[in-house]
Amino acid sequence: MTEFIPPGTRFLALPSPFPMKRGGMLHGARIAYETWGTLDAKRDNAILILTGLSPDAHAAANEANPEPGWWEGMLGPGKAIDTDRWFVVCVNSLGSCKGSTGPASIDPATGEAYRLDFPELSIEDGADAAFAVVRALGIERVACVIGNSMGGMSALAFLLRRPGIARSHVNISGSARALPFSIAIRSLQREAIRLDPSWDEGRYDDASYPEAGMRMARKLGVITYRSALEWDGRFGRVRLESDRRDDEDPFGLEFEVESYLEAHARRFVRRFDPNCYLYLSRSMDWFDMAEHGGGDAMRGLARIRVEKALAIGVHTDILFPLQQQEQIADGLRAGGADARFLPLPSPQGHDAFLVDIERFGAAVGGFLAEL
Amino acid sequence: MTEFIPPGTRFLALPSPFPMKRGGMLHGARIAYETWGTLDAKRDNAILILTGLSPDAHAAANEANPEPGWWEGMLGPGKAIDTDRWFVVCVNSLGSCKGSTGPASIDPATGEAYRLDFPELSIEDGADAAFAVVRALGIERVACVIGNSMGGMSALAFLLRRPGIARSHVNISGSARALPFSIAIRSLQREAIRLDPSWDEGRYDDASYPEAGMRMARKLGVITYRSALEWDGRFGRVRLESDRRDDEDPFGLEFEVESYLEAHARRFVRRFDPNCYLYLSRSMDWFDMAEHGGGDAMRGLARIRVEKALAIGVHTDILFPLQQQEQIADGLRAGGADARFLPLPSPQGHDAFLVDIERFGAAVGGFLAEL
Repeated sequence: MTEFIPPGTRFLALPSPFPMKRGGMLHGARIAYETWGTLDAKRDNAILILTGLSPDAHAAANEANPEPGWWEGMLGPGKAIDTDRWFVVCVNSLGSCKGSTGPASIDPATGEAYRLDFPELSIEDGADAAFAVVRALGIERVACVIGNSMGGMSALAFLLRRPGIARSHVNISGSARALPFSIAIRSLQREAIRLDPSWDEGRYDDASYPEAGMRMARKLGVITYRSALEWDGRFGRVRLESDRRDDEDPFGLEFEVESYLEAHARRFVRRFDPNCYLYLSRSMDWFDMAEHGGGDAMRGLARIRVEKALAIGVHTDILFPLQQQEQIADGLRAGGADARFLPLPSPQGHDAFLVDIERFGAAVGGFLAEL
Repeated sequence: MTEFIPPGTRFLALPSPFPMKRGGMLHGARIAYETWGTLDAKRDNAILILTGLSPDAHAAANEANPEPGWWEGMLGPGKAIDTDRWFVVCVNSLGSCKGSTGPASIDPATGEAYRLDFPELSIEDGADAAFAVVRALGIERVACVIGNSMGGMSALAFLLRRPGIARSHVNISGSARALPFSIAIRSLQREAIRLDPSWDEGRYDDASYPEAGMRMARKLGVITYRSALEWDGRFGRVRLESDRRDDEDPFGLEFEVESYLEAHARRFVRRFDPNCYLYLSRSMDWFDMAEHGGGDAMRGLARIRVEKALAIGVHTDILFPLQQQEQIADGLRAGGADARFLPLPSPQGHDAFLVDIERFGAAVGGFLAEL
C-alpha cells in the first residue's frame, strides 16, 4: 500500500476517535493540507479549497513546495485567488491516499493498512475533517469555501453542518446529489477495479496490483471528464504515426485519442490507491442533500446559510451537468443567499475548471474581488 | 463459438470470393436477411433496413417468425414502415454472429471458426454484402434505404458505392465519420473484452468465455446509448430493495440504475460473440466519408445521389451527436438531394429510435408517405 504525499505537506491530527457518518470511527487519523498567503490579524481573509476525487493538497507552488500544483493558474500572488490578499487552505480529502487518512493508511489497531476494513466513507466525513483543519488554524469563519467537483459536494456538506462557518461559497461543477448517469459511470469504474483479479478484495500489493482495472477506470473517467466537442477539435481522426503503433496487436492503439487516454491512464494507475478510489467514488454516489431536506434536495440546500454564493458549471459537462449547478444556486438563494448561477461555454467538460483558467479565473476572481 | 440465428432467417450466398476493402477475401460467405410484405410487379416498393451493431435481421414479426422483432413498433401492416405498401428487407450485417458470416463463422479453408483470422472488416464491406441481397431479390432500385446508428454509416457507404441504387434515404442517429469521443468509448469497450484473460486473443469457448469483459463493454454501451436526462426521471436515486442486495459485497449493487445495467449486460453477454463485437466496433471507428471526398466528409457526402433524404437525430445522443445528422443532411443536400435534418427532443439518447416509436414513427412514416 502506497501513499503519495507531496513534499512540504502539513498535517493535522484529527480528534480521536473521529466518528464517521455511516458508523464506525477512526483512531489517530490525520488530514493533509497546505496553505498560501497570511492569515490577517482579524482572521477574516481565509479561503478553504475542497478538491475533486484525486487531487492532493498541493493546489499551487508555495514556500514549502515550489513545484507547480494542480490549480497553479488560479492560485498565487495576483492571480484569481490572490494569495497577496487571501490566506488559502487546501485540504486533501479524508479517505484519499495523498496524505490524509484513508484505506491505504495504517490502522493503528492492527498495524496493517485498513484496506476494506476502513469504515464506510461519506462526503460528510470529509467535510467534518476539513472543519477540524479550519478550526485548528484559528479560523472562526472563512471568507469563502471553494469546492470543485466532489469538493462541491464536500463544500455543501461543510456549510450545512457548520452554520455560520463561511461568509460565501463558490461551487464549481458540483452537485447537490449524485444522479443515475453519474452513478452508473462511477459504478462501472469501480466494477473495472473489482473485476481485476489482482484487486483481490483489496489485498493487492505493488507486485500484484490491479493495474488493468485502474487503467480502465481512469480511461472511463477521462472520457467523462472532457467533452466530445473539445476532442473533435483536439484529436479529430488523427492516426498515430506508424512508429507509435504495435502492428502485431490487431486491436491496438490506432487513433491519437486512444493514445491520449492510454497516457492519462498510465500516469494515474500507480499514483492513486485503488481502494481509496473505490471509497471516494462511492461516497459521491451516496451524497444527497435531500437527506438534509426531508427528502427534498432544494430544501436541503435552502438550509445552508451563506451571504453570497456563485455556482459555476459548463455546458459540455456530462458528469455534473449544468442543471445541477443551477439547482445549487437556486437552493442557496432559497436559503437567503445572494446566489448566482454562471454557466460557462468552456468546451472542456467537467475538467474545464482545471484548464480553462481564463474563464474560471475571471469568474472566481470577480466574485472574490467583490467580497 | 456460437452464432445466434432467429428461426425463419433467410440466407443469401455471397459471390465467392467476396473481396474485402482492407484486403483479403471471404469464400463461401453468406448474409442473413428477412423480408416483410410483397415486392410489387414494378419492383419499386422495396425498403432496405441496415441495422446497428448488435441487432439481427428480425426487425419485426413475420410469417417465418411470429416473435416480436427489435423494431416491432415501427414495422408492420399499417405502421410507420407499412408492410401493406412496402416490401421491406432487413439485413444482418456482415461480420455479425446473427446469421451472416463473421469471425464466429466457420472458415471453409480450415473447418474452424475464423476468430481473429477473419479479414479486417469495413463498413463498406457490409454495404457491398447488403447490395448483393438487394440484387438477389431482383430489386434494381430501392425506394428507400433506412439506416440506424452503425446502419446509418452502412447506408451512406451503400449509396455512395452503388450510384442510383436508391431513390431516397432515411439516416437515423448515424454519422458520416466516427469522432474521437465515440472512438474513445468503443476503444474502451474493446479493451475491456481484450483485457479479460478468458478472451485469450480470441480463442475462448463457452466454458472459458470473456464474460466479465463483455459485461463491462455492454454496460458502457448502455450508458452511452441512453441519456442522463432519461435516467433522472426513470431511476432517480432509487435504491434496490434489501432482498435484491448482497450485503456481503461492500461495493455491490445498491441503486436501481446499477441493477438495470447489470440486467442489460447479462442479457447480452452470452448472446453476442465477443470477436464479432470487436470487428464490428472497430469498423465503425474506421468509417469516414472523408475518404470518399478527398479528405472532406462533406464532399464525400455530396457525391451521393438520392432524390430525397431525411437525417434524424436526438438532442440527448452523446454517441452520435446531433451535429453529425445535420452534417449528413447538409452533405446530401450539397449533392442535390431534397434533404432535411430533423432533430427530435427524445430523452432516450442514441437508443431513442428503438423506444420513442411515437416520434420516430411519425417522422419516418411521414417521409415514406410522401414518396
